[in-house]
Amino acid sequence: MPKQVDHQARRRLIAEALWRVALRHGLEGVSLRHVATEAGVSMGLVQHYFATKDQMLLFALGTLDQRVTQRVAERIATLPDPTDARALTRAVLLEMLPVDEDRHSDAVIGFAFFAQAATRPAIATALRLSVAQLQAFVGEQICHAQAVGQAAAILDPAREATALLALADGLAMQVLVAARSPEMVLMVLDDHLDRLFSSPSKNGAERG
Amino acid sequence: MPKQVDHQARRRLIAEALWRVALRHGLEGVSLRHVATEAGVSMGLVQHYFATKDQMLLFALGTLDQRVTQRVAERIATLPDPTDARALTRAVLLEMLPVDEDRHSDAVIGFAFFAQAATRPAIATALRLSVAQLQAFVGEQICHAQAVGQAAAILDPAREATALLALADGLAMQVLVAARSPEMVLMVLDDHLDRLFSSPSKNGAERG
Repeated sequence: MPKQVDHQARRRLIAEALWRVALRHGLEGVSLRHVATEAGVSMGLVQHYFATKDQMLLFALGTLDQRVTQRVAERIATLPDPTDARALTRAVLLEMLPVDEDRHSDAVIGFAFFAQAATRPAIATALRLSVAQLQAFVGEQICHAQAVGQAAAILDPAREATALLALADGLAMQVLVAARSPEMVLMVLDDHLDRLFSSPSKNGAERG
Repeated sequence: MPKQVDHQARRRLIAEALWRVALRHGLEGVSLRHVATEAGVSMGLVQHYFATKDQMLLFALGTLDQRVTQRVAERIATLPDPTDARALTRAVLLEMLPVDEDRHSDAVIGFAFFAQAATRPAIATALRLSVAQLQAFVGEQICHAQAVGQAAAILDPAREATALLALADGLAMQVLVAARSPEMVLMVLDDHLDRLFSSPSKNGAERG
């Protein structure tokens, strides 16, 4: 029987090597040659799967997205009430924050991709799609919360979703650059979620 | 008389060349050689002023900081009331947002520096200092607003400053990646400022 080649597994092996090179040297240190050496395969094999650096970067970005999506799904599966808009929104946002080692590595690489997007249109397009999906999900949760009286009807869901995602991205940057503690960052995120998701009647009672 | 050499002007000439190279190719495209070619000077002259790429990057980061500080000062000079905490805070945050061409270029380079910080400790240290200064300034404004009854006394100024700066950074990212409009971003920022800076008595009247 001819040897079966698991192409997807080989692509992943190469993407994981890219990951390790990028964490040590930044994405600009990622050449097809470096990645081949790190993966312990020939340059020719890497080129067989990825003709250009852009193709390799896009595949690696896709695996990052998959990993984050998988973690969000696992977090959602543990929620006591899987229809709770605040909890669903929080589950997504928590995966954007570098509050442990895995998420820290992912955030470092995520921001490196963001920087690459300034000069690589294919990366910019992929990131834009990913942001649009997140924005749609969070916007839907805010609409749902409004429908069941857990967010003020006067709010614009798209604007509030933009604010929430921006806050999470900015908090992630602060953890990476300013060594802000994960605890501080979670408090700030929860402050914001508390203001957004609370029943209008409860707001009136607290604030009046 | 011997020819006077304006060393500071030469350093700036080189930093501006670095800027143009970085906007076209990203900061990873910035080598001492590329910058020398772009500046129209010899490689030796660049090396005379900057022994390493790190030194050149740090100088360029310093000129970015100076430019932003200068623009903030100009904006503050036009405020009707230069002691108004909300207006002072807004003046600083607006300079972080890529709402016009100059600020767009500065934000692209700013985020590129942020990505470099993951693998270059000297850049990370410089950015951390810059974030700490911003954080202190915004925190002081919030304290001042509390003292004069323009922000709720119950708020933690450091936590609110963290939230504001994170929001501004995240909004800047959204303009760059998701092509979010400057108008949308300004509305989100003003929503947040409105919630933070309003006299407690006014809050009571509006919300009760």
